[in-house]
Amino acid sequence: MKHFFLGLSIFFLLSFCNDIKSTKQTSQLVNKKDSITIKQLFNAALTNGQCYQWLDELSNDIGGRLSGSPEAQKAVEWGEKLMRELKFDKVWLQPIMVPHWVRGEKEEAYFTSNNIKYNIPICALGGSISTPKNGITGKVVEVKSLKEAEQLGEKLRGKIVFFNRPFDATLLETFRAYGGCVDQRVYGAKTTGKFGVLGVIVRSMTSYIDDYPHTGNMYYGDISENQKVPTAAISTKAANLLSKKLKENSTLKFYFKQNCKTLPDAPSFNVIGEIIGSKYPNKYITVGGHLDSWDLAQGAQDDGAGVVQSLAVAQLLKLNNIKPKHTIRVVLFMNEENGLRGGKKYAEEAKTKNEIHIAALESDAGGFTPRGFSFTATPKNQELIKSWKTVLAPYGLTSIGEGHSGSDIGPLKSETISLVGYRPDSQRYFKYHHSALDTFEIVNQRELELGAASITSMIYLLDTYLK
Amino acid sequence: MKHFFLGLSIFFLLSFCNDIKSTKQTSQLVNKKDSITIKQLFNAALTNGQCYQWLDELSNDIGGRLSGSPEAQKAVEWGEKLMRELKFDKVWLQPIMVPHWVRGEKEEAYFTSNNIKYNIPICALGGSISTPKNGITGKVVEVKSLKEAEQLGEKLRGKIVFFNRPFDATLLETFRAYGGCVDQRVYGAKTTGKFGVLGVIVRSMTSYIDDYPHTGNMYYGDISENQKVPTAAISTKAANLLSKKLKENSTLKFYFKQNCKTLPDAPSFNVIGEIIGSKYPNKYITVGGHLDSWDLAQGAQDDGAGVVQSLAVAQLLKLNNIKPKHTIRVVLFMNEENGLRGGKKYAEEAKTKNEIHIAALESDAGGFTPRGFSFTATPKNQELIKSWKTVLAPYGLTSIGEGHSGSDIGPLKSETISLVGYRPDSQRYFKYHHSALDTFEIVNQRELELGAASITSMIYLLDTYLK
Repeated sequence: MKHFFLGLSIFFLLSFCNDIKSTKQTSQLVNKKDSITIKQLFNAALTNGQCYQWLDELSNDIGGRLSGSPEAQKAVEWGEKLMRELKFDKVWLQPIMVPHWVRGEKEEAYFTSNNIKYNIPICALGGSISTPKNGITGKVVEVKSLKEAEQLGEKLRGKIVFFNRPFDATLLETFRAYGGCVDQRVYGAKTTGKFGVLGVIVRSMTSYIDDYPHTGNMYYGDISENQKVPTAAISTKAANLLSKKLKENSTLKFYFKQNCKTLPDAPSFNVIGEIIGSKYPNKYITVGGHLDSWDLAQGAQDDGAGVVQSLAVAQLLKLNNIKPKHTIRVVLFMNEENGLRGGKKYAEEAKTKNEIHIAALESDAGGFTPRGFSFTATPKNQELIKSWKTVLAPYGLTSIGEGHSGSDIGPLKSETISLVGYRPDSQRYFKYHHSALDTFEIVNQRELELGAASITSMIYLLDTYLK
Repeated sequence: MKHFFLGLSIFFLLSFCNDIKSTKQTSQLVNKKDSITIKQLFNAALTNGQCYQWLDELSNDIGGRLSGSPEAQKAVEWGEKLMRELKFDKVWLQPIMVPHWVRGEKEEAYFTSNNIKYNIPICALGGSISTPKNGITGKVVEVKSLKEAEQLGEKLRGKIVFFNRPFDATLLETFRAYGGCVDQRVYGAKTTGKFGVLGVIVRSMTSYIDDYPHTGNMYYGDISENQKVPTAAISTKAANLLSKKLKENSTLKFYFKQNCKTLPDAPSFNVIGEIIGSKYPNKYITVGGHLDSWDLAQGAQDDGAGVVQSLAVAQLLKLNNIKPKHTIRVVLFMNEENGLRGGKKYAEEAKTKNEIHIAALESDAGGFTPRGFSFTATPKNQELIKSWKTVLAPYGLTSIGEGHSGSDIGPLKSETISLVGYRPDSQRYFKYHHSALDTFEIVNQRELELGAASITSMIYLLDTYLK
């Protein structure tokens, strides 16, 4: 594309003006001052935002930071130091104990069919036990659901169960597709352990057909120790190949080896910084992302992006000389991925101390281009938040409606609190999610900073209009 | 982010249902059948789309394809072959003569300040003349606009003029920012040639601060041969450095060397495929992108994406057994980047043959996640097209309004035709645009296919409702 987009420019200018105009007409709740403030927040993020540099440090200097790891501890120290540099009014570490699972040596897998050996990209799922030292080999039964596995029952004995229901590529909202298949990963082993299976392998949770296995948490639940079997994810391309070869040869043997293990719980921390409210210092608005990540890459999108965007709220408010009325807490939660201990602890302590939390916002869907927010709130506040679309839409934030907010802020739920989730565009997220691809390189600076500005704008509106 | 997004799922399901519902309430012009058809088109693109594979071929097997190059010729042959494989009713090549500019050896540039040599990433602008064999060296005058250069006038004599007005990072619609600074690149040499300047360098047209120079077209216009000077772009990081060093040392010397040249016009082609309309075979709807690209990379986003998405229209209609009423022409335009000869020729021949063109759609803003369409049309058709938002919004296509359509279809403009531009998200586009970064690797498969489905849906609606 060449040059001059005056026609387009006018179109978008008009859209913007229409949005400001309709603000006046349809709502007394947001006004021109809000539009101007939000524009200033976006300008600051796009010209002086530091999210990208911070994410570079977190991703490249520290790297993957699974709960209990030395890297997770480094991330805690990094977050605390940065909060002090950003001159929060108060910074502290909230102690928690976290699960401590370690992957061990790189996993191996292959299968043989018609004397041809096919190497399989595989990774252990978080929480899984190891295979015996020399791995396990077994025939494979492919299933598409927990229900199908349950129905096969004893027929699974001595076999490797292969959960292969695909991520539904046709769903525009990719988190719905994830929600539609992740039960296989989480409960595959729990469901089939009682039938004396040898192991469980699961198709990676992504619509992209490639060579990257995607890890993630699994639960054995309350099954007995001898029913627990090693569980792993294989790449989508490998899953398609295995499924195809099983149709040709149902007795082929699959081999995999992993030596992960769960160590005793380890001490760790939520990292918390406060900007004390000018009018209601004892009423809190929390904004956060999770500091821990999976170990296969750098956790840049999941959830380095949410971490740096939450930190940016403080920076962008200060740059624009906005002094919040309520106390704003930036929380870098620990252990979202495999335990949620940080989110639970934060809510527990808030309850113990009788803190009044009026709102919380979580960013844990990546640092992609803005699309909107989803939330739970009282009916009155639902209408209020929806009415803000008029000042947010010019920034691509057009999807503002009820829905899930976030795992870490979930435990704060009460009858009165507004819980908000930042919802960037979700089309690329599951290409990277929990895989070796989730590195700094795949994060776009401008999208990341736009997310920070979107979140700060929402915090500004919550602070301005919530009682 | 971990698992289960049922809340979110319900939110998006409700949004979708609301959209379908509001279709009935607010418009008689689109209906449930359209919603279903559009869903089918998106499903087909997301499960059986071939855009990504085609773009892989065009980018990796052929590569950059500047007008007149052997690669441009290969791209013509590739396009024609693919159209025949896709079983268009009619496929032909429309001959044109195109400008033939060649870059020659890799350019070189540096400046020296306080005895330190700084190497500068540089590239000649398309259409520029060469420097003398040994390059040119001169003092630098930094300006921020054509007007400022014009005012300096004779003071520029014997100097290298450095156009350094930045791309405005605060504009959400990045094409507006591009439109706001590209005059320096296009007219910098034309404006200053008459003052006897030694050469022109220009800051690259991007908000990203990095080491990649971005090329693009420049015009000498009607200035005399002896007023023409070599013109090049330097990276944004280098532009910032040079500007800083000029403030410390205004007499520093800048050196650059390039040996590009313009050869005689070369023969080339637009590649055209037709699906003959079932009801109005003599009324045309054109959809296209441009087959040529700049030479620094593979032209994957600009405009390989538009090429494969236009081809996909035929594939997706066929997959869903949709037989258009009007004749659909897929046109792979040649020479958008430095001449627009393809676009002009196509319109010229349409006029000569008295063809009735009711609509045309262009995709030349990259293969990013869908945001909307901009268009020009009669007032009646404007309202019609805007009313389609109800069935398009569930796919992220929420920005539907008047504006620029595209350079290649521009010459088709008439009092009655509807000209539509596909408008994907624009935040990442200018990171890659015209630079060495515009490769297949930075294209996301899902976003690309969603674009193809968006465009096919618009073609379906134009075919269904335009008279």
